[in-house]
Amino acid sequence: MWRSLRPKGRSDASGGYRRFAWTGADADCRLWFRMQAEARRLDYEVDRNGNQWAWLGDPAAGDAVVTGSHLDSVPDGGAFDGPLGVVSAFAALDELRRRGVTFSRPLAITNFGDEEGARFGLACVGSRLAAGQLAKDKAFELRDGDGVTLPAAMERAGLDPEAIGPDPERLARVGAFVELHVEQGRALDLSGDPVGIASAIWPHGRWRYDFHGEANHAGTTRLADRRDPMLTYAETVLAARREAGLAGAVATFGKVSVEPNGVNAIPSLVRGWLDARAADQDALDAVTTGIEKAAREYADRHGTDLAVARESFTPVVEFEHALRDELGRLLGGKVPVLGTGAGHDAGILSASVPTAMLFVRNPTGVSHSPAESAAEDDCVAGVLALADVLEGLACR
Amino acid sequence: MWRSLRPKGRSDASGGYRRFAWTGADADCRLWFRMQAEARRLDYEVDRNGNQWAWLGDPAAGDAVVTGSHLDSVPDGGAFDGPLGVVSAFAALDELRRRGVTFSRPLAITNFGDEEGARFGLACVGSRLAAGQLAKDKAFELRDGDGVTLPAAMERAGLDPEAIGPDPERLARVGAFVELHVEQGRALDLSGDPVGIASAIWPHGRWRYDFHGEANHAGTTRLADRRDPMLTYAETVLAARREAGLAGAVATFGKVSVEPNGVNAIPSLVRGWLDARAADQDALDAVTTGIEKAAREYADRHGTDLAVARESFTPVVEFEHALRDELGRLLGGKVPVLGTGAGHDAGILSASVPTAMLFVRNPTGVSHSPAESAAEDDCVAGVLALADVLEGLACR
Repeated sequence: MWRSLRPKGRSDASGGYRRFAWTGADADCRLWFRMQAEARRLDYEVDRNGNQWAWLGDPAAGDAVVTGSHLDSVPDGGAFDGPLGVVSAFAALDELRRRGVTFSRPLAITNFGDEEGARFGLACVGSRLAAGQLAKDKAFELRDGDGVTLPAAMERAGLDPEAIGPDPERLARVGAFVELHVEQGRALDLSGDPVGIASAIWPHGRWRYDFHGEANHAGTTRLADRRDPMLTYAETVLAARREAGLAGAVATFGKVSVEPNGVNAIPSLVRGWLDARAADQDALDAVTTGIEKAAREYADRHGTDLAVARESFTPVVEFEHALRDELGRLLGGKVPVLGTGAGHDAGILSASVPTAMLFVRNPTGVSHSPAESAAEDDCVAGVLALADVLEGLACR
Repeated sequence: MWRSLRPKGRSDASGGYRRFAWTGADADCRLWFRMQAEARRLDYEVDRNGNQWAWLGDPAAGDAVVTGSHLDSVPDGGAFDGPLGVVSAFAALDELRRRGVTFSRPLAITNFGDEEGARFGLACVGSRLAAGQLAKDKAFELRDGDGVTLPAAMERAGLDPEAIGPDPERLARVGAFVELHVEQGRALDLSGDPVGIASAIWPHGRWRYDFHGEANHAGTTRLADRRDPMLTYAETVLAARREAGLAGAVATFGKVSVEPNGVNAIPSLVRGWLDARAADQDALDAVTTGIEKAAREYADRHGTDLAVARESFTPVVEFEHALRDELGRLLGGKVPVLGTGAGHDAGILSASVPTAMLFVRNPTGVSHSPAESAAEDDCVAGVLALADVLEGLACR
């Protein structure tokens, strides 16, 4: 199963994955999901927001146990972030059938669309739409780097974009959602555990910093006559690191776009995207206001202009304590509980349904990179843990 | 004439020009050149390197007076850098015909190909090839951002890339080359003169800085575990400004490319291009070694790796003193003589033929930007000065 998914959307150049929402690579992954569902005689459906569901039992019966993750990727992402949760869901179902259990609740496996936000700049679009956390008109304004709108991309992928929007009826059928995910830090590696349970997702957001200057010839413009936004950007990158260090948080400029981006031209515009996360809201506020304050001072000094726009924000998510504690019990009480700085569909859905997450050890902590990895033994441990959880929840 | 060239390759979005070598916009400009030549009953030819020539008189007679510049542009460049020299050349010929002069030497107007290097990263490709300063095999290795090679692009534009290479026979016909260009600094604005004569072109070059780090998740990777090349890049940008200030030089990072360039991914690679220029070689060496030394120290501190490659370099160019002095005499001895940090085809050709340059005042000094400008009166003064020079050189 893993082998059949591996080549889809893989770049020969980087060895990483480029499975962006509603592209051909994404369609390949979605077809793979459907084939896995049909091979297991599950009832396949696509919801109004493009999320895929594979049902065992009657959805209308309600109180379903749902597990899954996403199949899209960041640019040149790794093989595990997302797909491990979907593959493990199918593998856990295979394991439960091997155990010969009897299901007392409906079970579903899901693939949420456009989790990474790599194409349209907003993460978790599929789950946000379903949970009513992204309005249809806002979704219609999303554009990719080539100017293609989200509805146009969805339509090209064979969906009806007019139908997107909140889906309370479908979510009301879900009694518990459990997402298994490769860990994206080193907490399990440091504690020596193959599997962990999530406590909370740090509050996090994305801010776009537009540094405006004046395009000019790089060879003939005196330093004193320049309004070079690259300088303001550079100082702000360093300020972000400094402020994050002070607050025990993380802050990153990982994406930048420059105009006109010529070797012999001082830029007119440097646009940088800030990703910032912290353990609580106060710490995050301290980081983001500190960075913006420093950036405005630098802009004044360089004669450049700065516009800051918050592109997305997710407050702290505490996973439901009852479900979390039940997972701990079902796994024998010896599984560590840990927080994470990464956003997930589970975080979005936790506002609507009882939600929990399992993490599988990542020996290097590396994620969003072709070097992302998990040991085969740990992946098997993840599948068995998920099977134990599903059996405990759906077969009692 | 100016009006007919203006719309070609102009971007509606920026108001700037995107006339990149061997693109459709470039072909439009080249067709415009040919039509201007034919409308004046000049003999039109394209040399083996794609440079355009329009001849009055017999090229084989030798000792020709040649004037011209280039029609390509940087990304979102201005209307004057390049085209002013070509348009003024045709206008000066019109003026000489109006004066009813008799030509004693052949005269040619030229458009050199790919002067800005905006597409393939190397400036003055047309004149470098002709002057034997760029080997054919090196030219064949040039690629644009989409991976298209220079020979493939030339072939698509209808040229025979196998024919490119040194063209000593054609250059031997040139007795003097005079390039008129909009000034790209504020020296004439500060001195109050509409036209100036070039003394020298500062030594200048382009260096590619590849900062390699480790791609990772921006939300979950502890600051201490990061190898973030964006930090090293940012410190190097600031070091470049500092070193240039110390040496009275200019140094600019105006172009950058990031991999994977995702908002929530620490980059694996930040590639920045340094453009550096100084009044003499010692000052330039001080700047570039200072920047590289600082960058390597930052890389050590951040756990990143740095590779620096010099992509192009042009030593100081002193224009021929005899021709320069003759221009001064022909213009009545009251025209200021000034150096420049910008490279030009005239700088390349000066190694092969006697070469001089005229500059037209730029009231803001802004260049390589849609805001680049020159007053109409000053453009007319430039045409008349060029006509005086051509008359003095070719009609005695």
